[in-house]
Amino acid sequence: MPASEFQLIERYFARLGTTRADVVLGVGDDCALLQVPADRQLAVSMDTLVEGIHFFPDVDPESLGHKALAVNLSDLAAMGADPAWVTLALTLPKVDEAWLAGFCRGFARLAARYQVQLVGGDTTRGPLSISVQVHGFVEPGRALRRDQARPGDQIYVTGSLGDAGLALLAAGGGYDAGERLAVLQQQLDWPEPRVAASQALRHLCRCAIDISDGLLADLGHICEKSGLGATIRQAAIPLSEAVADYVHTTGDWSMPLAAGDDYELCLVIPAGQQAQVERIARTLAVPLTLIGQMESGAGIHCVDAAGNKVADLQGGYDHFRNA
Amino acid sequence: MPASEFQLIERYFARLGTTRADVVLGVGDDCALLQVPADRQLAVSMDTLVEGIHFFPDVDPESLGHKALAVNLSDLAAMGADPAWVTLALTLPKVDEAWLAGFCRGFARLAARYQVQLVGGDTTRGPLSISVQVHGFVEPGRALRRDQARPGDQIYVTGSLGDAGLALLAAGGGYDAGERLAVLQQQLDWPEPRVAASQALRHLCRCAIDISDGLLADLGHICEKSGLGATIRQAAIPLSEAVADYVHTTGDWSMPLAAGDDYELCLVIPAGQQAQVERIARTLAVPLTLIGQMESGAGIHCVDAAGNKVADLQGGYDHFRNA
Repeated sequence: MPASEFQLIERYFARLGTTRADVVLGVGDDCALLQVPADRQLAVSMDTLVEGIHFFPDVDPESLGHKALAVNLSDLAAMGADPAWVTLALTLPKVDEAWLAGFCRGFARLAARYQVQLVGGDTTRGPLSISVQVHGFVEPGRALRRDQARPGDQIYVTGSLGDAGLALLAAGGGYDAGERLAVLQQQLDWPEPRVAASQALRHLCRCAIDISDGLLADLGHICEKSGLGATIRQAAIPLSEAVADYVHTTGDWSMPLAAGDDYELCLVIPAGQQAQVERIARTLAVPLTLIGQMESGAGIHCVDAAGNKVADLQGGYDHFRNA
Repeated sequence: MPASEFQLIERYFARLGTTRADVVLGVGDDCALLQVPADRQLAVSMDTLVEGIHFFPDVDPESLGHKALAVNLSDLAAMGADPAWVTLALTLPKVDEAWLAGFCRGFARLAARYQVQLVGGDTTRGPLSISVQVHGFVEPGRALRRDQARPGDQIYVTGSLGDAGLALLAAGGGYDAGERLAVLQQQLDWPEPRVAASQALRHLCRCAIDISDGLLADLGHICEKSGLGATIRQAAIPLSEAVADYVHTTGDWSMPLAAGDDYELCLVIPAGQQAQVERIARTLAVPLTLIGQMESGAGIHCVDAAGNKVADLQGGYDHFRNA
């Protein structure tokens, strides 16, 4: 007889991640009971990954468990929030305990790294799909919203952009990445949420967003919500060797500008903080690159090294339009 | 061109339910920002509904929107928590705006009835599936957990049991419910979460659970967590006319004892409170029926009017075993 839903919960989900003192009651009742610190606001975000849309059917379940949590922790980082709790709605076509064990291993390792505890969720039967909600804490008034940018603020990004997009293109046979495929694939399958960078830099930031739908689309949200435009110096955008090769070979900037799934942070920081930002970035060992600034007006302009506007590019991944 | 994900969010999800003062930032940023009252704990629960498993493909989207929220509010009621916020992960095969408008109408009407605000979520493409997380408040130490029952405590249930199960049986052609089908179908499609009953009775209760997997399975969780057994007087179980007819015709008690989806509450209340419980039930206009008591030992015994044990029945719905 296959394991029951209750046995699965007991075996895989009852103790997953860190055990936190602020969890009054975790998995196993009608609700979890949680204690938010009196001097903090609660930040919550929810993201779904669907087989065939967000990941390939043959994906390593361990990397999928990692990524399902990572993309959500990335939203907390983008808000400047400290991670605390997570819930998991897992829909599975059948009980495959080897798959489940792998999924939970990837999920749990990342949860433990950021002191996150799984406190609840639901396990149901159906087409493979994963919804995760993360919960974090933020000091009142200190959240990194999208609507606080001002003209002249500087725009930074962590890491390098376009690797996940190029990995997808290569996986689909649209590009031969050669021996660099493994590195690209690592970026696609095992994104590291920029929690540490957010915690170290948030006191300097005015806004932040994580780059899940592409730089232009995501920075576009900051522009729209703040009622501003932005200029990006295209040559300043940090590229891995693989993406730099791709761009120079093809002339196509869509990977670093418009491909999703990178989960780097785009940070908006008032001018004059550059030395401090760079000092913090060195301590973190996370690349942090100044790529442009916020401006009056609307829309994002990409300029070349001479300051001339380069051709527009349709930006960002949209789940329904790109169907 | 079909609507984009962002247009859908703006059109259907940006303002859904009540507008609450404790929502610092709602839909539209990386995270929602929420203020839990300083003297309350946060109660959270998450439930998923999958097409073909939890509902028929041709279900009225308005009732589906209602039910997706109702089954989650039922968990808050079972915990004795006051509803506050909700997040919604909606996976849709395609954008069907008439369907979405119906779904949101059903969801929003119920949300407004219980002063609940939608604060975030995710809209993705894929096989139809809905994950909802509810968030509520509970006084520290006053949550209705499953592990607090004591021998001699009395067991009550709200409403009547087995209607949703019989509706499913009838829908599958396994029973001719005649002119009562519409009433049964109403119970299956439009369950009313017992929030008001919970709020009125929780100060008297030691434990509660909502009956989503069947009375025996759900009361079984209270028995197991409390390290006790229970005796149920079968003839005392409240039945609608339709279910009473079914039981008397077929001799089959599985609908009221083991069928899921009723979302009534099973409440465990210390002995000696009966007069007070009945007075509150009359004020609420919610049927509340004493069906048995908690006992030392383990397992649930059903007895007939003479106190003799009736035959055992396999209890409860399990998503994987009943596949």
